[in-house]
Amino acid sequence: MKDEFLKLSHGAGGTLMDEIIRKILMPNFSVRRALGGVGMDELDDGASLRMNECDIVTSMDGHTVSPIFFPGGDIGRLSVSGTTNDIAMMGAKPVALLDSMIVEEGFSFADLTRIAKSMEEVARELGIAIIGGDFKVMPKGSLDRMIIATCGIGLADKGGVVLDSGARPGDKVIVTGSIGDHGIALLAARKEFHLNIEIQSDVAPIWKTVEVALSHGKVTAMKDPTRGGLASALNDIASKSNASIWLNQDQVPIKDSVRAASEMLGLDPYEITCEGRAIICVSEKTAKDALDAIRRTKYGREATIAGEVRAEHPGYVLLRTQVGGTRVIEKPIGEPIPRVC
Amino acid sequence: MKDEFLKLSHGAGGTLMDEIIRKILMPNFSVRRALGGVGMDELDDGASLRMNECDIVTSMDGHTVSPIFFPGGDIGRLSVSGTTNDIAMMGAKPVALLDSMIVEEGFSFADLTRIAKSMEEVARELGIAIIGGDFKVMPKGSLDRMIIATCGIGLADKGGVVLDSGARPGDKVIVTGSIGDHGIALLAARKEFHLNIEIQSDVAPIWKTVEVALSHGKVTAMKDPTRGGLASALNDIASKSNASIWLNQDQVPIKDSVRAASEMLGLDPYEITCEGRAIICVSEKTAKDALDAIRRTKYGREATIAGEVRAEHPGYVLLRTQVGGTRVIEKPIGEPIPRVC
Repeated sequence: MKDEFLKLSHGAGGTLMDEIIRKILMPNFSVRRALGGVGMDELDDGASLRMNECDIVTSMDGHTVSPIFFPGGDIGRLSVSGTTNDIAMMGAKPVALLDSMIVEEGFSFADLTRIAKSMEEVARELGIAIIGGDFKVMPKGSLDRMIIATCGIGLADKGGVVLDSGARPGDKVIVTGSIGDHGIALLAARKEFHLNIEIQSDVAPIWKTVEVALSHGKVTAMKDPTRGGLASALNDIASKSNASIWLNQDQVPIKDSVRAASEMLGLDPYEITCEGRAIICVSEKTAKDALDAIRRTKYGREATIAGEVRAEHPGYVLLRTQVGGTRVIEKPIGEPIPRVC
Repeated sequence: MKDEFLKLSHGAGGTLMDEIIRKILMPNFSVRRALGGVGMDELDDGASLRMNECDIVTSMDGHTVSPIFFPGGDIGRLSVSGTTNDIAMMGAKPVALLDSMIVEEGFSFADLTRIAKSMEEVARELGIAIIGGDFKVMPKGSLDRMIIATCGIGLADKGGVVLDSGARPGDKVIVTGSIGDHGIALLAARKEFHLNIEIQSDVAPIWKTVEVALSHGKVTAMKDPTRGGLASALNDIASKSNASIWLNQDQVPIKDSVRAASEMLGLDPYEITCEGRAIICVSEKTAKDALDAIRRTKYGREATIAGEVRAEHPGYVLLRTQVGGTRVIEKPIGEPIPRVC
């Protein structure tokens, strides 16, 4: 058999990455679930362990963003937000974080300090502890600047974990803010794309927005649209929940600058990474209350009910366009932009 | 103030790394402990969360070994052993693992499969689950081959966590096997050192050896001698326990090949990384029973009582040499060999 080799798109959150995980990694791991909790097979935002008193939720992510400082954030803010957002997407309150920093020889103490301060800012906003980690240096030329992997730990009520598979026909789909800001901000920060726009990344810790959704709404499924954007996240919910998701184009918040930059570059804003947004499916009856509560939070002011869950065409995500048509939003093959998160 | 820049030795597990953690990272993190458990300040092998029913122990490590395949193991075996060993060193039974793999574009599917199989082999030996993780690809030239960060989760009896600070005068110090094998095996695998020796890395999951030590002995402190070797680990125990550790040179197991290679390269075997060894301090009364039990385990057959804990000269590690002298073993500035773990 001819050997194959990894392409960038294999790590980009789309169907190619799913293939690596499902065909190469997962079949080799015989035990993929601990203490009866959520395991690797769910391919959800995190995993869980069922204790007597509560469910422990955990999630891990390696962050490789380029450039490491960008408008609206840096790799430190990203590494704490990204992982705690995944914990939040499981319906759990983040309580602690561990990190593994690997840095290229020659990295400055000043940059390292600045990144630590960014991590602290997010940790403080969330009220979580940074309880441990690891620090390594790789020789000059063997790593581009820095990687921060983080693992978060959160607590959910016993049996209270929210899965991607819980969306039910009739549920409303809330999007907590404008999509694609993070990916386009990263592109704009990379001079080679000659994008003369000013846009800030949306990178932020969204637990407190999620918390009010959980207390005001009957939340059935959640996912944060990171690599592969809204398209990837919604397709995951639709296929795992065995239902369709219908979006109304005029209700999906997209900034004009993001729309313009996407058009210039031939990108679909639905496929572009966010790092501070959530898709929250809630029962129809509680949707209005949940939306109102979300809008009162720092990162939920522009939230909308962007669509609903239906029974027909299970597994599909469909967009009702502003001109009255319908188009299928497919799961992308990969994030179109490498090294955005 | 003039800016400073990271050197390889800043990530090498010695006094320089301690400085980065204590002076740059830690002061920026305001909350470093969660749920009353062991936190960052202890600088122990892991951290913990106190639940009502038990203590949850967690530890995280980023693995950057070069070459990624080496005699006796590979980065997969290392990444699961390294983190679960840290959990074991806290007195906790490893139950679950998450990983973050970051791979260079062009990495082969065959190598990825081989590494996944190595991870599985260790997971199966330990009876743990691999419950989740993350997979990313970095562009060609921006990462040397692969990084695997792992975060482990273990369970300890309530209040049963073993700290580095618990060693007491009178305790015996057990070393579970020969030291320095991993570091020298890595050096031998790197052609540039022209070492014509055959030596296998000791990389292995040592929980089951630790488990019998805990059940047969009154264990007061444990540490695995990884970066910075036996010298770094023993100095940590001595300083944190406010006691001295006295080693008998003729009782410290060192392979002839490791001794010879160390001499050729001007290295001190006491400072060289192991990846499948433990230092276990036990009460004098239980030392013989613990040693016998340890010797019956797969990775403890060559265990010795290598020394004892004393009250005088607190914080010092002293070696009684075979010729009747005494020398101080200081904490190294850094691991002498980059990218061994």
